[in-house]
Amino acid sequence: MTAIQDLYPDDFAHCFGCGRLNADGLHIRTEWTGDEGVACLRPPERYLALPGFVYGGLIASLVDCHGIGTAAAAAMLAEGLRPGEDESPRFVTASLTVDYLKPTPAGSELVARARPVEVKGRKVVVEVSVLANAVETARGRVVAVRVPESMIGKA
Amino acid sequence: MTAIQDLYPDDFAHCFGCGRLNADGLHIRTEWTGDEGVACLRPPERYLALPGFVYGGLIASLVDCHGIGTAAAAAMLAEGLRPGEDESPRFVTASLTVDYLKPTPAGSELVARARPVEVKGRKVVVEVSVLANAVETARGRVVAVRVPESMIGKA
Repeated sequence: MTAIQDLYPDDFAHCFGCGRLNADGLHIRTEWTGDEGVACLRPPERYLALPGFVYGGLIASLVDCHGIGTAAAAAMLAEGLRPGEDESPRFVTASLTVDYLKPTPAGSELVARARPVEVKGRKVVVEVSVLANAVETARGRVVAVRVPESMIGKA
Repeated sequence: MTAIQDLYPDDFAHCFGCGRLNADGLHIRTEWTGDEGVACLRPPERYLALPGFVYGGLIASLVDCHGIGTAAAAAMLAEGLRPGEDESPRFVTASLTVDYLKPTPAGSELVARARPVEVKGRKVVVEVSVLANAVETARGRVVAVRVPESMIGKA
């Protein structure tokens, strides 16, 4: 399935977390299933917190980029566009919260499920659950805003 | 100055964000100045959000690991130990919040200043400001808890 991030304009596709044009990045991909965004990520081995457990900052990155991708999908739907088919609008993060419910075991694929809970003007709020081996280990919330003009073309 | 993370026991020094034994990590280092923790980090070039701006997930990682290091220092003080001299206790993150106040320009060193605001039993709460070129661009909060037995020795 085409991910939301596959359809960011080239100028917005360099994000370390989710940009297809960042060769060294994580390449987080949000697939819009019709009522939620789903992203799967197998953390590279270096992303440890303690031996045996995934680094919390990696989980925060997953919540962040997947939340932003899902915000784009929700905004598209509100505008009558088709997520995963039309060009994706680029959002940025105003606020990120992650609650670490339990340690996340290393070595398995993480699945993040994201649901838009508010779409209002330039702002979208998304809630994200992160699961490892089908057990929810973290829960997050992203406040996303449409990228401001001041952030465009500053390379 | 010796950092809090320099004095984590070897078993707890593999964190991607701050572990001295993680060869591929960020090596975030918290120096305890007497009333706050200070960490400086020059983000590697790959950590972009949009061209010209630092990746939010990298900022979240800085807030996280520096908050945890500062929590360790605060706990040590409460127990009559000397941060940066005695062995540092290892905390993990229960909750992480980052508010992105404005875009963080790429290419400069980030300075994170962290203050413990609550020390109670196994829990420490830390507030963190992130500055670029002396301008505060992000503000975070970390709820840290002493590492549980269930997370030790699972490599």
